[in-house]
Amino acid sequence: MTATTTGGNRTQIEADPALPTIKITRDFDGPPELVYRIWADPDLVARWLGPRSIDNHIHTWDLRRGGSYRYTSTRDGEEIAAFYGSFHEVRENERIVQTFTYEGWPDGVCLETITFEDLGDGRTRTTTLSVTDTMEARDGMIASGMESGVVEGYEKIDEIISEQTADQPA
Amino acid sequence: MTATTTGGNRTQIEADPALPTIKITRDFDGPPELVYRIWADPDLVARWLGPRSIDNHIHTWDLRRGGSYRYTSTRDGEEIAAFYGSFHEVRENERIVQTFTYEGWPDGVCLETITFEDLGDGRTRTTTLSVTDTMEARDGMIASGMESGVVEGYEKIDEIISEQTADQPA
Repeated sequence: MTATTTGGNRTQIEADPALPTIKITRDFDGPPELVYRIWADPDLVARWLGPRSIDNHIHTWDLRRGGSYRYTSTRDGEEIAAFYGSFHEVRENERIVQTFTYEGWPDGVCLETITFEDLGDGRTRTTTLSVTDTMEARDGMIASGMESGVVEGYEKIDEIISEQTADQPA
Repeated sequence: MTATTTGGNRTQIEADPALPTIKITRDFDGPPELVYRIWADPDLVARWLGPRSIDNHIHTWDLRRGGSYRYTSTRDGEEIAAFYGSFHEVRENERIVQTFTYEGWPDGVCLETITFEDLGDGRTRTTTLSVTDTMEARDGMIASGMESGVVEGYEKIDEIISEQTADQPA
C-alpha cells in the first residue's frame, strides 16, 4: 500500500504479511533538527497530526523518557476521538519510542518507534514502525482509514517546513 | 516451552511460532486483589522479580497510566543490569500495560500486557503477553535465559502469598 503526495515525496505504508506491524516511511525536504522539532513541539504537532478535516487539542505532552501524552480531535467543534500513550524513550533528532491507544478501543495498544534519518542533503527520512499483539489488531488499524490521515498529515508537515524555512534569513 | 514449579502450579512460557510474542501463563493460590498487590507494590516487586541469585533496587515506580519505572539488579552487591519502562495503562486488579527495556540493549523494547484473571476459587491466573518488533528480538529474549528468572520469580510470589495469607486472622 503506497500513496504519492504533493511535492514528489511519497508516503509508503507497508503492512508486513508475516508480522503484526505497520511501517510508514516518508522523506521530507528539511533537516532532521527541523523535522524532529515539528514532531516534538506540541503546538506544531497539533497543526499537522491527522486529516485536514479535524482539529487537534493537546491536553498532555510531556516528551521525555517516562513522560506521556493525550490529545483529542474535533470536527466542526465536536469531539470525535481521543488518544493517549507514554513516551518510552526520546533521543533528540533521532528517535522517539511511544505507546499509542485510541480511547474508543482501550484494549488496543500499539508500540511505535519513530526514527529520523539524516539523508545528508538537508533532507530527512522518517520511519514509523508500529507493532501490536495480533494480526487482527494490526489489520483493524489499517481498516480504520489511517492512510488518508497519515498522507494528509505529512502534507501539512511539508507546509510547516516551507513556512519555517522561508522564515530563515537568507 | 513449559516448566513446572513447586506447589503444582505450572509456569507456561510460549514463543508463538508465527508472531514475535512471548506468552507467560501462571496460576497462583491467592485472590486477584492479593496477586495484583504483589505485582503493584514496589517493596513486594523488589522481593520477587527475577532469579533468586539477584537483589532488586527500585529507583522509580509510578504505577499509573502515564507513569514510569526503573530498577537495577545486583548480584553479590554488584550491579549487573538495569531496566526501565513506562506504564501505558493500569486497571487495578485487572490489567497492566507497560513497556520494558534492558538498558544494556536500549533499542530493544517490549510491550507487555499483564492480565489478572479471577479463577473464582480464591485463585488467580496471570498472563503476560510480550510483543517486540521482530522475530529476532523475540528469540533474543528467549535466549537471554529469561525462563529461570520467571520460574524462580513466580515461586517467590507463591511464598509471599503464603506469608500474606498466614498473616490474616482466621
